[in-house]
Amino acid sequence: MNFESFFNPKSIAIVGASRQKGKVGYEILSNMIAAGYPGRIFPVNPRTDVIEGIRSYPDLRSIGQVPELVVIIVPAKIVPAVMRQCAKIRVKSVIIITAGFKEVGNNGKELEEQVVRIARQGGIRVIGPNCLGVIVPANKLNASFAGDMPAEGVTGYVSQSGALLAAVLDMANAKGIGFSKLISVGNKADVDELDVIRALAEDPETKVIAGYLESITNGNVFVTQAEAISAQKPILLMKPGGTEAGAKAAASHTGSLAGNDAAYECVFERAGIIRCDSLKSQVDYLQAFANQPLPVGNKIAVISNAGGAGIMAADAIERRGLAFADLSSDTIARLASDLPPAASLHNPVDVLCDAVAGRYEFALSAVLDDPNVDIALVLLTPQAMTEPAATARGVVKIASQKRGKLILASFLGASKMEEATNILREGKIPCYDSPETAVRTVKVMTDYVRWRARPKRIVELFRVNRRKAETTIEKHLRQGHYQIGEVGSKEVLEAYGFTIPRASAATTPEQAANIAQQLGFPVALKVWSTQIVHKTDVGGVKLGLQTPEEVMDAFDLVMYRVSKKLPDATILGVLVQEMVKKGVEVILGMKRDPHFGPLMMFGMGGVMVEVLKDVSFYLAPLTAEEAKQMLMSTKTYQMLKGVRGQRGVDIETIAEGLQRLSQLATEFPQIEEVDINPFVVGPKGTTPIAVDARMSLKPR
Amino acid sequence: MNFESFFNPKSIAIVGASRQKGKVGYEILSNMIAAGYPGRIFPVNPRTDVIEGIRSYPDLRSIGQVPELVVIIVPAKIVPAVMRQCAKIRVKSVIIITAGFKEVGNNGKELEEQVVRIARQGGIRVIGPNCLGVIVPANKLNASFAGDMPAEGVTGYVSQSGALLAAVLDMANAKGIGFSKLISVGNKADVDELDVIRALAEDPETKVIAGYLESITNGNVFVTQAEAISAQKPILLMKPGGTEAGAKAAASHTGSLAGNDAAYECVFERAGIIRCDSLKSQVDYLQAFANQPLPVGNKIAVISNAGGAGIMAADAIERRGLAFADLSSDTIARLASDLPPAASLHNPVDVLCDAVAGRYEFALSAVLDDPNVDIALVLLTPQAMTEPAATARGVVKIASQKRGKLILASFLGASKMEEATNILREGKIPCYDSPETAVRTVKVMTDYVRWRARPKRIVELFRVNRRKAETTIEKHLRQGHYQIGEVGSKEVLEAYGFTIPRASAATTPEQAANIAQQLGFPVALKVWSTQIVHKTDVGGVKLGLQTPEEVMDAFDLVMYRVSKKLPDATILGVLVQEMVKKGVEVILGMKRDPHFGPLMMFGMGGVMVEVLKDVSFYLAPLTAEEAKQMLMSTKTYQMLKGVRGQRGVDIETIAEGLQRLSQLATEFPQIEEVDINPFVVGPKGTTPIAVDARMSLKPR
Repeated sequence: MNFESFFNPKSIAIVGASRQKGKVGYEILSNMIAAGYPGRIFPVNPRTDVIEGIRSYPDLRSIGQVPELVVIIVPAKIVPAVMRQCAKIRVKSVIIITAGFKEVGNNGKELEEQVVRIARQGGIRVIGPNCLGVIVPANKLNASFAGDMPAEGVTGYVSQSGALLAAVLDMANAKGIGFSKLISVGNKADVDELDVIRALAEDPETKVIAGYLESITNGNVFVTQAEAISAQKPILLMKPGGTEAGAKAAASHTGSLAGNDAAYECVFERAGIIRCDSLKSQVDYLQAFANQPLPVGNKIAVISNAGGAGIMAADAIERRGLAFADLSSDTIARLASDLPPAASLHNPVDVLCDAVAGRYEFALSAVLDDPNVDIALVLLTPQAMTEPAATARGVVKIASQKRGKLILASFLGASKMEEATNILREGKIPCYDSPETAVRTVKVMTDYVRWRARPKRIVELFRVNRRKAETTIEKHLRQGHYQIGEVGSKEVLEAYGFTIPRASAATTPEQAANIAQQLGFPVALKVWSTQIVHKTDVGGVKLGLQTPEEVMDAFDLVMYRVSKKLPDATILGVLVQEMVKKGVEVILGMKRDPHFGPLMMFGMGGVMVEVLKDVSFYLAPLTAEEAKQMLMSTKTYQMLKGVRGQRGVDIETIAEGLQRLSQLATEFPQIEEVDINPFVVGPKGTTPIAVDARMSLKPR
Repeated sequence: MNFESFFNPKSIAIVGASRQKGKVGYEILSNMIAAGYPGRIFPVNPRTDVIEGIRSYPDLRSIGQVPELVVIIVPAKIVPAVMRQCAKIRVKSVIIITAGFKEVGNNGKELEEQVVRIARQGGIRVIGPNCLGVIVPANKLNASFAGDMPAEGVTGYVSQSGALLAAVLDMANAKGIGFSKLISVGNKADVDELDVIRALAEDPETKVIAGYLESITNGNVFVTQAEAISAQKPILLMKPGGTEAGAKAAASHTGSLAGNDAAYECVFERAGIIRCDSLKSQVDYLQAFANQPLPVGNKIAVISNAGGAGIMAADAIERRGLAFADLSSDTIARLASDLPPAASLHNPVDVLCDAVAGRYEFALSAVLDDPNVDIALVLLTPQAMTEPAATARGVVKIASQKRGKLILASFLGASKMEEATNILREGKIPCYDSPETAVRTVKVMTDYVRWRARPKRIVELFRVNRRKAETTIEKHLRQGHYQIGEVGSKEVLEAYGFTIPRASAATTPEQAANIAQQLGFPVALKVWSTQIVHKTDVGGVKLGLQTPEEVMDAFDLVMYRVSKKLPDATILGVLVQEMVKKGVEVILGMKRDPHFGPLMMFGMGGVMVEVLKDVSFYLAPLTAEEAKQMLMSTKTYQMLKGVRGQRGVDIETIAEGLQRLSQLATEFPQIEEVDINPFVVGPKGTTPIAVDARMSLKPR
């Protein structure tokens, strides 16, 4: 959609404009005027002729022309009527500030649906309701009640919470972050976060996209599009509700269903979105993204006038997995030529407690010239000889001479650092309250750079017997069986290229013994019932049976025990299965997220998966690279590779299993969940086996 | 020691006082004067008669009286001469500001030792060298070059880095934290951090102790004393060098050996010390510790005018394991009586975006009256109707009326919140830059409260055969064998009450078979050599041998394989050992830290310990409670308790094993390391068995 009339309208009508100070209808009008909006403003209010010296109209029609943008502030129950007026005179863009819609319950929800219907019929695009409005500093547009106009800049911001937007504005202003566009989307009745993010992606004035979201409206489309946008411009989002309590608070606050957090993590990872865990960290990161170049590598040089500060930075650099730059011998010689003998010439460079501005300039300059350095972090503590303001000016000067490398600062202190902090801010050098925060920001930037450089995603499609899988799935659905047991699940998996143990079902002890003899001993016996999920727990499994007699005994024992524990379960018989060679047991799984589709899971199998929760998730469809990444992001991976003389297992085959399962999940939206547990893997060259499995289908 | 002459001297001589602005000798003198120091000041400088209008003396002796405190600022090489003068005229307390001692290498180290010798002979106590000095705001004493006098307050601060002290001062000032005493200890040539912390513990003006340390001088004593002090006053320390890079930077920066970080973690945990990971978080925590009461419980009520901020707080509360207060029905009714209908009356209480100061006051008051609430967190975002300053005044007012509960605030924004933040600061309400920071601070406080309420530590002493253990250990030491192999280690462990598998050594295949027959089959065979640590890796172990023939074959096989792999190892024979019943394998260990003594370790045994690193450490001697805590702080604990129908193991016996090992380590400082791996544990009522073990001794 085109945001031109929201971002740069030639004329604006304010329906509900008021003469009364403190009222939203007054605040918005006076914000518009204070911003110096160059277009025409039409206040609409039937009870007055003039507001703030501007002619006011009783209704939209009496304006005599079509305002390009209409801002609505009237009480909720009158909004539909105003919308109908808008439709009648062919207004195309509306911002509804008014609250009292979906967020207050069922009545509000109906009102909101009514508004949307009118909008759709009239071809009107609507931002809001329950929002703060839109601000575009460069166009002197402040169609909001967020207060003062923020500084012009390169950050485009989208917020689902008006209140937080106001706080962001205030904090950003103090940190030298300017904005290209600010959009408060409120209830997202029509225009949603993705519409806005797309508009910001196309906006030449926007270099960085940031926002606060409580929900994502259209999960599937969001992922793909955000991924494409992230490749061009960084997206930094706050998305709370990561924990249960937060999700509960979210549900009671907004009318939107908060998605599962594991899914959000996967979505953000896939789409390269930088997740911020607080307003403060978002502002911290924005300082660097908006004002500095992206780092080319991850090698940091630290310059400090206090050993202690250098140590704290070094700790943080190691903790975050970043690299200390190894200064070249040229740089060290150059530093030695002019720094006092007691200075530490190696990284972190200690310019000593009596370092004046010139010494900092010299050291920073030398360090930035070093090809081994990608990033410079300047630390300063207030000491007797310290010149904070002059040092800040020096840093800004050197930064302007040597462009291209990421430069950050942490000047420790408060009032003594105020002037210096202002100078750094104006010079576009991000300045942090602690070395740790600076380092964390670097980490976020280098992660983003790495994400951008990731190989192209190529999802391999395996040849599978899709028809056969479909037959099994449809059969279950027709019979209303939404749980597919071991036998059916393995049929589906086999159709998708998984190797399953040879097995047959038996309904009598003799038949079981016969099958066992055909398979060859030893065999395993498992109860066969679609209603039993944890077969071991009910005594439904016997392993390592060596003779026909043992098989017959086991048959009766399993039947007896299971029917005693679960008298109501329908038992179809037993499954006689070849014993699988010993190997490492892992679990492959899939769970479909209602918003974002299939989430793939990998973890250590057996009891361990529940105790250690050493699992990883990723969004389907998986590439080979991503499947391997899933393995590598668990601790289990060390064991799969082989430890202490134990041979490793064939990791490629696990990755392939995940990819095949991902293909199955993508091709059959009917499947809600799959567990392959255990998936037994052997050394390189062997075939992994799906020893047990279950699926559940979406009831229809 | 008595710090009276450091904290409240009647007269001070400044040796090296200077007329030249910018010089340290000038700064200190002018700081002294600016602070309004009421005692006598004697500048000492042979090249002038008057400095800043005060009579100056050519040397200490010519003053004609003994100054209670001498501050030395002359160049390092002259310091010994000044110290000798001090000794001659019987000065008792000296602060050496001068740098250029231990921290610059061997020459400086010698100089420092010389200074210490003179001090010891003359009965002089010395703070420094290489320090910033001492500040006592209440006594108008600023014997430092840290700059302006900080505000008076209840925080006593000790710093090993002068530079960071200056930054702390500046940051604290901006956050309303005042100081009782500030001491920069520098190189700690004489007075160390523990001396200062003890002085602060006894100081009635100090309520909270804080500091920055790069090393702890006297580890053992520190732990015990800090533990006693923490029980009275909270101690908040920054201690960097937690990572390898940090430790390297520390080693090159100070002359002190940085301790191992696992040890520091244990020490801080034992002693109840609150570890701060940055200057910023220290200041964050101090705001609350210095200005607010300790919370009685961990149940938090949140009040917010923005749903989004409430969600962020809720997320943080859950993530930190704190509790959401369940508001009583009385409170909810009371809130309902006066809040608008759209307000959320449940925790987090949403007072809505148009909340003015009065509404906040009302809600805070109601919430604080609720007996289910221990802690109140007030969140505010700047919106159209918001009254930040008036709301801040309201919070301060309510807080003064309802004392005893912990109250914190997070007013989100910057310039719009400035006035409010000042009001909160003056009203002693800690105010944070994000809800997360506030919640993290609460977590730190509740942890401290829980630590204070911990049961009294009673270390159980088991009856052991100390003499027998000593004999084995001494025998190894006499022979210069600092590695005790399996046989010797088990002798020692058996003497300390561990059950070891029955076993005997054999030097021929026939002897091995005989022993096996006496033990009963099956048996295990292990190579017997003090030089082989990982027996399995060299083919030195055979398990589950069933017959005399198998034993004889295994004997030869082990001998052949081991001698082929390790041709230079002395092989004493094999150990024939009963097979231990299956159970869960864990590892018990001890590693002696050079500063803090024995660190006990517990973890999952076998290959897993290396892959998953699921281990916990604790400082010996262990109480039963602490031993159990060690188990509970690993993920393995879930498995020990029993999962998915598997029976759990006897957890008490593992805890007892740890306690016995702790006793062994405490009673034999000769032992450097012990590994009991695996320690096999069975169900309740069974005896755990130390299946394999090794020790190393301290070479002498």
